[in-house]
Amino acid sequence: MAQDEQDDYLIRPDPLDPRLTEKVAGVDQTGASIETRVTVERALTIFLNGQEIVTAMTINDYPEYLALGYLLNQHMLLPDDTVTGVDYDEELAVVVVRTRRKTDYEKKLKKKVQTSGCAQGTVFGDLMEAVENVTLPRAELRTSWLYALTQKINTTPSLYLEAGAIHGCVLAKEDRPLLYMEDVGRHNAVDKIAGYMFKHRVRPHDKIFYTTGRLTSEMVIKTVRMGIPILVSRSGFTAWGVELARKANLTLVGRARGKRFVALAGEDRIVFDQDLRYVEEESAKHRRKAAVHDD
Amino acid sequence: MAQDEQDDYLIRPDPLDPRLTEKVAGVDQTGASIETRVTVERALTIFLNGQEIVTAMTINDYPEYLALGYLLNQHMLLPDDTVTGVDYDEELAVVVVRTRRKTDYEKKLKKKVQTSGCAQGTVFGDLMEAVENVTLPRAELRTSWLYALTQKINTTPSLYLEAGAIHGCVLAKEDRPLLYMEDVGRHNAVDKIAGYMFKHRVRPHDKIFYTTGRLTSEMVIKTVRMGIPILVSRSGFTAWGVELARKANLTLVGRARGKRFVALAGEDRIVFDQDLRYVEEESAKHRRKAAVHDD
Repeated sequence: MAQDEQDDYLIRPDPLDPRLTEKVAGVDQTGASIETRVTVERALTIFLNGQEIVTAMTINDYPEYLALGYLLNQHMLLPDDTVTGVDYDEELAVVVVRTRRKTDYEKKLKKKVQTSGCAQGTVFGDLMEAVENVTLPRAELRTSWLYALTQKINTTPSLYLEAGAIHGCVLAKEDRPLLYMEDVGRHNAVDKIAGYMFKHRVRPHDKIFYTTGRLTSEMVIKTVRMGIPILVSRSGFTAWGVELARKANLTLVGRARGKRFVALAGEDRIVFDQDLRYVEEESAKHRRKAAVHDD
Repeated sequence: MAQDEQDDYLIRPDPLDPRLTEKVAGVDQTGASIETRVTVERALTIFLNGQEIVTAMTINDYPEYLALGYLLNQHMLLPDDTVTGVDYDEELAVVVVRTRRKTDYEKKLKKKVQTSGCAQGTVFGDLMEAVENVTLPRAELRTSWLYALTQKINTTPSLYLEAGAIHGCVLAKEDRPLLYMEDVGRHNAVDKIAGYMFKHRVRPHDKIFYTTGRLTSEMVIKTVRMGIPILVSRSGFTAWGVELARKANLTLVGRARGKRFVALAGEDRIVFDQDLRYVEEESAKHRRKAAVHDD
């Protein structure tokens, strides 16, 4: 059964990939020597046409998707832009996105705002506009899907379960996880999903976005910009995240663990079809692991 | 006893401050209406002399310390700079730091790197230099201090325990927590401590820095730049964080929960003086709360 479930994924974590973790030596609380695995992070510089845009720290499993998604979520690449090439050079740790349309982003790059979750220096005014002018589609979030989905995600082998100190994001449809991306920064995991959706023309209207991280303003803005109507997290809310979600009519579900969850925006999309007597509390094992996963 | 312990703090969280959390209505997993508290985040724009530097999202409890610490940690304010004024305007949500020395940071602001934890657009080259040229002081981390310290921090009333979705950082000496700052972004909590230390000329050489967040490269760089020789977290490591800590000879202790911890750099500062038979595992209550605190 576990195998069937995992076959639903188009992309899922590969915790055994030797490039993604590193064995390091240290000592434990008794002073004894130990070896443990830690997540790698690598610098990757993203260019848009001739222009150096940013150097991101990433586990670097999907540099092309990361570059596309980063530029999209920064409004530097527009949904109707024609991408003429994405070239990744492993040795130089550089990825270049080429587009037909050319713009000078020097000026835009100057004015930055630090959002709270993981500040990306997003262009503030642009993002606020994006939330205010958007109309998210009608959609359904059945609670039976929600419980099945979180159960599948929690039992999928991941870097998070293997080495910790990593963020995960999942794009899902109904009760099926489709793309499960992890990265050292949560924003990278989101951007990789956005890049995949752009490249493969995945439609957002019937999707659910799941994150291990907090429901901050930045997370809400990115989900809305991707056109996805439902955002779920096992973690908590910030007040501004809630406010923006309400403004955009995004369904915002947080603290989703075991039987429990709380919805603070777009509650009308939720269909309470699950008999709660048949939902299990989260296993102690997962809870313990989750507790290690603190940012 | 709890009272005595808390009297050690120079600054500690004030979870009952009505400006820091907001009551919001929503529904729970049964569809029933509920009310819950969420952490606020507010935009604060930081100016250095005439220059607009950044807009940060913050809980805004200490705008002056945040501004000073941000500028220090970005290398825009130097330890020997003379600050002639720090003016906070609540209505405009602006804080202006004035210094005798004036520099144009337009050029520096152009080249950014996204570090993994919470990317602040830190100036990469500068920070690498800072780690390589630093000599951290000799110091001791007794395991008896470590257990007493984490126990005190975990039982201190905080926004984290009240509303979740927040990061905490603590500056400590031996087994005494001195400054306990929280914020929606971990980098803000660190910056507020750095700002306090700068303003009140707190010496770093005999201090211990504690964070709820992961031990990423950014966290290591900031601790090293502050001149603090010991960094402790209840959360995990990234490989680059470990590498930088070793380069700087920073004592790096992670996954510190209950009886357990792992040290992956600077282990020689640790004195194993605690009889582990007398250390309790973390209480289920704290573990449950901690699990909500996911980035």
